[in-house]
Amino acid sequence: MKSIKAAVIGATGYAGQELVRLLYNHPEVDVKVITSKSYLGENYTDIYSNFSHITEDILQDDDLEKISKEVDVIFVALPHGILSKKVTKEILNNCKIIDLGADFRIEDKDVYEKWYATEHISFELMEEVVYGLCEVHRDKIKNAKLVANPGCYTTTSILSLYPVVKENLIDTNTITIDAKSGVTGAGRGVSLNTHYCETNENMKAYKVASHRHTPEIEQELSKAGNKDIKLTFTPHLTPMNRGILATCYANLKAGVTYEDVKQAYEKHFKDEYFVRLMKKGNFPETKWVKGSNFIDIGFEIDERCNKLIVLGALDNLVKGAAGQAVQNMNILFGLDERCGLNTAGIFPV
Amino acid sequence: MKSIKAAVIGATGYAGQELVRLLYNHPEVDVKVITSKSYLGENYTDIYSNFSHITEDILQDDDLEKISKEVDVIFVALPHGILSKKVTKEILNNCKIIDLGADFRIEDKDVYEKWYATEHISFELMEEVVYGLCEVHRDKIKNAKLVANPGCYTTTSILSLYPVVKENLIDTNTITIDAKSGVTGAGRGVSLNTHYCETNENMKAYKVASHRHTPEIEQELSKAGNKDIKLTFTPHLTPMNRGILATCYANLKAGVTYEDVKQAYEKHFKDEYFVRLMKKGNFPETKWVKGSNFIDIGFEIDERCNKLIVLGALDNLVKGAAGQAVQNMNILFGLDERCGLNTAGIFPV
Amino acid sequence: MKSIKAAVIGATGYAGQELVRLLYNHPEVDVKVITSKSYLGENYTDIYSNFSHITEDILQDDDLEKISKEVDVIFVALPHGILSKKVTKEILNNCKIIDLGADFRIEDKDVYEKWYATEHISFELMEEVVYGLCEVHRDKIKNAKLVANPGCYTTTSILSLYPVVKENLIDTNTITIDAKSGVTGAGRGVSLNTHYCETNENMKAYKVASHRHTPEIEQELSKAGNKDIKLTFTPHLTPMNRGILATCYANLKAGVTYEDVKQAYEKHFKDEYFVRLMKKGNFPETKWVKGSNFIDIGFEIDERCNKLIVLGALDNLVKGAAGQAVQNMNILFGLDERCGLNTAGIFPV
Amino acid sequence: MKSIKAAVIGATGYAGQELVRLLYNHPEVDVKVITSKSYLGENYTDIYSNFSHITEDILQDDDLEKISKEVDVIFVALPHGILSKKVTKEILNNCKIIDLGADFRIEDKDVYEKWYATEHISFELMEEVVYGLCEVHRDKIKNAKLVANPGCYTTTSILSLYPVVKENLIDTNTITIDAKSGVTGAGRGVSLNTHYCETNENMKAYKVASHRHTPEIEQELSKAGNKDIKLTFTPHLTPMNRGILATCYANLKAGVTYEDVKQAYEKHFKDEYFVRLMKKGNFPETKWVKGSNFIDIGFEIDERCNKLIVLGALDNLVKGAAGQAVQNMNILFGLDERCGLNTAGIFPV
Repeated sequence: MKSIKAAVIGATGYAGQELVRLLYNHPEVDVKVITSKSYLGENYTDIYSNFSHITEDILQDDDLEKISKEVDVIFVALPHGILSKKVTKEILNNCKIIDLGADFRIEDKDVYEKWYATEHISFELMEEVVYGLCEVHRDKIKNAKLVANPGCYTTTSILSLYPVVKENLIDTNTITIDAKSGVTGAGRGVSLNTHYCETNENMKAYKVASHRHTPEIEQELSKAGNKDIKLTFTPHLTPMNRGILATCYANLKAGVTYEDVKQAYEKHFKDEYFVRLMKKGNFPETKWVKGSNFIDIGFEIDERCNKLIVLGALDNLVKGAAGQAVQNMNILFGLDERCGLNTAGIFPV
Repeated sequence: MKSIKAAVIGATGYAGQELVRLLYNHPEVDVKVITSKSYLGENYTDIYSNFSHITEDILQDDDLEKISKEVDVIFVALPHGILSKKVTKEILNNCKIIDLGADFRIEDKDVYEKWYATEHISFELMEEVVYGLCEVHRDKIKNAKLVANPGCYTTTSILSLYPVVKENLIDTNTITIDAKSGVTGAGRGVSLNTHYCETNENMKAYKVASHRHTPEIEQELSKAGNKDIKLTFTPHLTPMNRGILATCYANLKAGVTYEDVKQAYEKHFKDEYFVRLMKKGNFPETKWVKGSNFIDIGFEIDERCNKLIVLGALDNLVKGAAGQAVQNMNILFGLDERCGLNTAGIFPV
Repeated sequence: MKSIKAAVIGATGYAGQELVRLLYNHPEVDVKVITSKSYLGENYTDIYSNFSHITEDILQDDDLEKISKEVDVIFVALPHGILSKKVTKEILNNCKIIDLGADFRIEDKDVYEKWYATEHISFELMEEVVYGLCEVHRDKIKNAKLVANPGCYTTTSILSLYPVVKENLIDTNTITIDAKSGVTGAGRGVSLNTHYCETNENMKAYKVASHRHTPEIEQELSKAGNKDIKLTFTPHLTPMNRGILATCYANLKAGVTYEDVKQAYEKHFKDEYFVRLMKKGNFPETKWVKGSNFIDIGFEIDERCNKLIVLGALDNLVKGAAGQAVQNMNILFGLDERCGLNTAGIFPV
Repeated sequence: MKSIKAAVIGATGYAGQELVRLLYNHPEVDVKVITSKSYLGENYTDIYSNFSHITEDILQDDDLEKISKEVDVIFVALPHGILSKKVTKEILNNCKIIDLGADFRIEDKDVYEKWYATEHISFELMEEVVYGLCEVHRDKIKNAKLVANPGCYTTTSILSLYPVVKENLIDTNTITIDAKSGVTGAGRGVSLNTHYCETNENMKAYKVASHRHTPEIEQELSKAGNKDIKLTFTPHLTPMNRGILATCYANLKAGVTYEDVKQAYEKHFKDEYFVRLMKKGNFPETKWVKGSNFIDIGFEIDERCNKLIVLGALDNLVKGAAGQAVQNMNILFGLDERCGLNTAGIFPV
């Protein structure tokens, strides 16, 4: 008998679909409702035939209020700006919500409205929200009504830098994050930007100095460092389906050694199942995390410039989206955090 | 308490590694030994770091006799020609063996020795062997001491054509199989043929009219059709990691209709969990089976030429190797065949 | 002083763009007009910035009549069904037209209208048309007013089989062509089918037994064999940008030897610059023809089935489209056929 | 009548092969000798069949002294450490040498020997050497006996930053270069690192804080800035064949504006044919330079951090190796620099 009844709103985007895959495999979850605006009424397997012989679920309408009375948790995988128009206190009293979108991630209304160029009409609900970066906010997440599941770039970036910011080992005015993402990060909507022949065999940066994950990273690192942090973040589109690699740079504070940095990472992460610290001289590669909820972190010091280089890699659809959402659910419902997530990555894919 | 103790001989090739991944996830299996000649004594996670935080297993020596006394089943994922030199009746009395290699697949010694250009020194053991194509030989597999797990191309090809050969719907003198494989099929050994820049963005045929999976396909289809069948098989190397697509052609016998063909596939496969028959007008794509043990099969009739075109797609490392090996183990030990294998493919990877 | 004034209608599709590239490099061509409906008035380099510092051409309107008075040759790279509605006798009297589309390839009006599901309103112009497969129809092309440039699959397929059909070495009732194309063949229009993540790492067949290049191949092979030929043609979408590999199968007539087949290919192609016959045991790979106008052809005989396997590879945008169009122009204007085309393929790309 | 007789030493590596392709297309060059240690005596087309029907050249022995008497220029495309052991004053008096390797790039013997971990036995020849970054050292190159052709990462990095270093617009203590390269950069030698399945669909950094191109970049930027510059350089292996994208970061000096930076780039590069400055808001993508000798450069200012972000993209085998070598030859022999190089990139490949 499975203990958690769940719904997935927006089950036909890539993150939504990955969530469905993980939830179907989860021993404690019964997926009661999956929804889609574009494919309403269709068989899920007609959209994603990898699920053929696994499910006969049909895509339903996303009446949040109704659904909130039927399930224990609603996962929302919609473009930003939709959930904040639909969610209410009442709904939050009915069930937990884990939002994979951006609506409730930014704690400063002005910052949100500026970066997302839109008004936020339900900002008062932020008091019920916890930013769902599990390794950092685990305790608060337990009691949240709405968990704002972090973005893919942000999870990679924050976890990669958290220990050295928290332990005050770097000059936080010098942080630069150069991130490389697979194309699933751009979603399933068709455009020339993600047309096969325009993307294959090509490397490019995009949204240079203007990507919306920037304020989210700054918010969390500012809290960790207990000071206002501004940083430079450059996303790149890489010709592969999955994976994010973030290469993070910052100047070390005077006198900080390799050993100091190592201890900071171990202090915060050595008992974290989903964070794998690399041995000296080893660095993350996206291939080793694909299909899993792990983030791999490795670092090096460029002695000649006194610069710390931290590399973090994760699967943008798992630890960067659906996997972390399930991890948040496990926390919310008092399950072992690894439940349904303790599998090795699949290689080579 | 897990019920089956297993060993994997040759755990560092791609098929061996996939097997390890599946067995670690299997609820009834305890992996007792993993071995490797090349990486003897090393941590498995130093070779495949996707397993970091999942296992601390160390690669051991492959002393078959010793291992056979410690486990219930030995999976062998070695190049052909090795197992047949090492295995003995005694070993087969100690435990079951599931061989992912080619040594015991061919029932005619001359055919084996001709195609593999080597002497077979333990051919007398063939009486203990069953060819492990689960959907076709399930009943015999149950009592086998050694299961010869089919090749990747062969599983795709045989299952794609089995129903129409069995039901006598095609002219078996006209079978042509044009197969396309991802590069994992070529293994992990380095060579110019599988060097990234020589393989990426390239399509080619290889071993034209001479691939060793040909006699294996012929053997099984000949048994199904109860006549001697010779066919043309052309493998192609496709620039992707995983997946096989086989496009199979044959002339229909006079008067055979679409409906006749459909009924043949349904008769043999409609209750087979791992065989997914496509609806009319839909055809398999390798992306939908990646990471899963399913084979997708679809067909069309070219009325103008009275030709049947059957397409089959599977993941060469799962249903084409490690997954089918686990399915065979489930049959051997009386488990539900789906045990440890009933997950959807992972997409997009 | 360049001798030929040219226009390219539809310069922003992939084939049109490749044509522009080849024509800019052509020593005898002055590109006077490039047109585009979608990008009218824009700088060409804003659409294709590979041409930055090469040209400052602006995309113009496609007034065929006006353009026909200003240039010697008009290349048309439009979707089928457009040119046949616009071209007139008058235009054809003003200048030569080389049509990369399908409107004038099929010599039987009924066949065209059936396969293309559209009426052909200017079929009377067919008397001015020559099918522009250079190696086969060179002499007629010289005097054509409108050259119907062959399709990409068709060029590969026809050239691969022409010698053995012409020399009556195969049973023409047994021809099967299994073709694999890169994604540029699907054009630049966005769709889920060509979305990066849906196409990358995937192999599939499409338009099984129903692709429009089928009647074109049949028409030309029927003429070569002097009999009505029907064949099975299956196109596949391969995860790479460029290139077509066609694997062609047919039964050999009784008594036909490897040497007979070899002589047929040599008889027809040994003096053809753009046809490269492979040595025994070697087979074409798309990587060796990319960026060039060559087609590589190799064959093998499956003695066990008496089946001929011919493999042909070309770059779908060059010999399969723009390159052959330039070759046709060279023929039309009495230039050396290799002019502007005698460069090696670029590797690795 | 072609005016320059050339030899290519090491014609079977990727850079050597690209050089051969460019030289065969060059209107003023007659390739007299191509050499290879590994494939001595073989037809070039048996190694690279893209050259079939283009050449019948045979790979010869690399007797530098003999060859130097027969040609005007020798291109050397060998691993580092070989040329410096073979070249002599006498050879340099016989003909020009353009070295695509690293032996003569570093002007400080200690720096060379430290980074390359080898003794340099002919360092006295450095007085005949000019570092062949054409846009920067054009005048000196004209009279060089030996041109040290820059590395691929270094060309991208130096050209991307040269104007702002030269014009003193950035804090040179804050330079970080995050570079992404296609796999051809790793050469044609087989290894697990460049095995298709280990590289495809994977993103990773390598030689973090220790890549040998670092001192080369530092040397040239130090000369430009007239001060000792140390910087952090991180190379990444990207799953594509060709192309380098360098994302360069540095703090702007106080008061420096977008316009100041723009003017610096225009001052140095607006008349440089092979440097294409992007319009505001546009950034380089490797796809637009593939197969061409162009480098595309674009920049943005992250106002929030006062950080300059410069992006440079080139084809590592062309402007990053063989193309720049030809450009250097053009300079050495008084030809138009664009000779044999003024073609658009090829797209999509």
